[in-house]
Amino acid sequence: MKTPLTRFSVSLPGPLARQLDVMVREKGYANRSQAIADMIRAHLVEHRQQFGTGEIAGSITLVYDHHKHHLQDLLTDLQHEHREVIISALHCHLDHDNCLEVLAVRGAATSIKKLADELIAAKGVKHGKLTITTTGKDLPA
Amino acid sequence: MKTPLTRFSVSLPGPLARQLDVMVREKGYANRSQAIADMIRAHLVEHRQQFGTGEIAGSITLVYDHHKHHLQDLLTDLQHEHREVIISALHCHLDHDNCLEVLAVRGAATSIKKLADELIAAKGVKHGKLTITTTGKDLPA
Amino acid sequence: MKTPLTRFSVSLPGPLARQLDVMVREKGYANRSQAIADMIRAHLVEHRQQFGTGEIAGSITLVYDHHKHHLQDLLTDLQHEHREVIISALHCHLDHDNCLEVLAVRGAATSIKKLADELIAAKGVKHGKLTITTTGKDLPA
Amino acid sequence: MKTPLTRFSVSLPGPLARQLDVMVREKGYANRSQAIADMIRAHLVEHRQQFGTGEIAGSITLVYDHHKHHLQDLLTDLQHEHREVIISALHCHLDHDNCLEVLAVRGAATSIKKLADELIAAKGVKHGKLTITTTGKDLPA
Repeated sequence: MKTPLTRFSVSLPGPLARQLDVMVREKGYANRSQAIADMIRAHLVEHRQQFGTGEIAGSITLVYDHHKHHLQDLLTDLQHEHREVIISALHCHLDHDNCLEVLAVRGAATSIKKLADELIAAKGVKHGKLTITTTGKDLPA
Repeated sequence: MKTPLTRFSVSLPGPLARQLDVMVREKGYANRSQAIADMIRAHLVEHRQQFGTGEIAGSITLVYDHHKHHLQDLLTDLQHEHREVIISALHCHLDHDNCLEVLAVRGAATSIKKLADELIAAKGVKHGKLTITTTGKDLPA
Repeated sequence: MKTPLTRFSVSLPGPLARQLDVMVREKGYANRSQAIADMIRAHLVEHRQQFGTGEIAGSITLVYDHHKHHLQDLLTDLQHEHREVIISALHCHLDHDNCLEVLAVRGAATSIKKLADELIAAKGVKHGKLTITTTGKDLPA
Repeated sequence: MKTPLTRFSVSLPGPLARQLDVMVREKGYANRSQAIADMIRAHLVEHRQQFGTGEIAGSITLVYDHHKHHLQDLLTDLQHEHREVIISALHCHLDHDNCLEVLAVRGAATSIKKLADELIAAKGVKHGKLTITTTGKDLPA
């Protein structure tokens, strides 16, 4: 018995849709839907990853176009709201448009995950990753 | 000037579509399209890494005990030798012993991987991770 | 290989010599010569600034309220326009409103002064300071 | 009545002594002793500057040669001992030898002054400056 399919429409910036099609072809998928289904599964696995309840340290790496309307204001607002887990943020000006921002974070795993989700979901952030490590306390060298 | 949008339809197994909707809501995206656009960008970044050509950006996150004999000297020496790919390093003093250091990097993928390997292998570094992202140039927002 | 030392004698008004000794002790220098060497280096840095030629290094320290309309966008725009002299920017979230931002800079003195003037003059920046130091190349340790 | 003079000898690295002589001549001092007396007076004024008892924010800018024996270890040790006033440190690799390090600091004025004095007095630090600003709380924009 086949699982019933749900059909819906997606709107992407034109250049991104074209790059998707190139990747779909290069990776050998039969069509866009199969490729997108695989991406969703991969992200669900990451999203559900359990972080435990202890204190963690780590970094959040973001690349974005600072010309996007109000994006810089939004990112700074989000960071100030979660400033209890941000040690500080390192901002690098890659070119006229693109910024690389790396936040050093420390605190409750759930708060850090929530902050990372909000920053990465902000419209205009091209790519973001949360990297989790340890505060070193419980890890012998 | 807004980038023109491309609209197409996607078919997903019903349960996967429902789980996608939960994740879209939990991560705070405005709609499915924005979430899917971010997933595509993340996969494009990973997909292009495998080819290993071109310039990348990213971060190297390290946790170490700075009391380890000569470790701080060694890490600084290694960084100066590879300074062409290091934008700068953010050093955070977690407690009396442990440091969190996050390097913002940019340059040839092979040089950055080599630097990360050498830093992470240094005796006294408890944990280290290389996070690869994009310089943003080839990734539409 | 150690740098050879040059030894010469200095005559100071008695009270000034005594106050020098107090300051040497309070600042934690091993001896008068090391304290005087540091003063000479500091004055060399300042002296050379006046000529305004050559490459300098330094920092720009800003405190601002990120809620001021478009301020964060403006500061990021200004920084991207002058990115050839900015190594990177360290952003610290002091409280709900106030940010401490420290830029590490390097390049032509005139460009760095212009950038500092523009950032400090931005409406909403409460306080800003340009600190000029050296790239270290022409200053013996 | 003339103030009696105190005579003592000073040892400087040869290249620094030669640069001192050039500056003495360019600034029009009669001799080294008069130039050094003026530098000491300028540093006494700075050293005695009162910082009050409140909380301050600011930055400490250092330039040093990381090859100096144990210097990097010493600077990291000093920073960990005073980590209650250090938000984080931004380390930039200027060339094969020279580092520019900028610390974002916040806390009691006296602790920050003490930390800056100790870092700047460390043998191998070529130049350092404490830049004091405000936490922004008491300063209307």
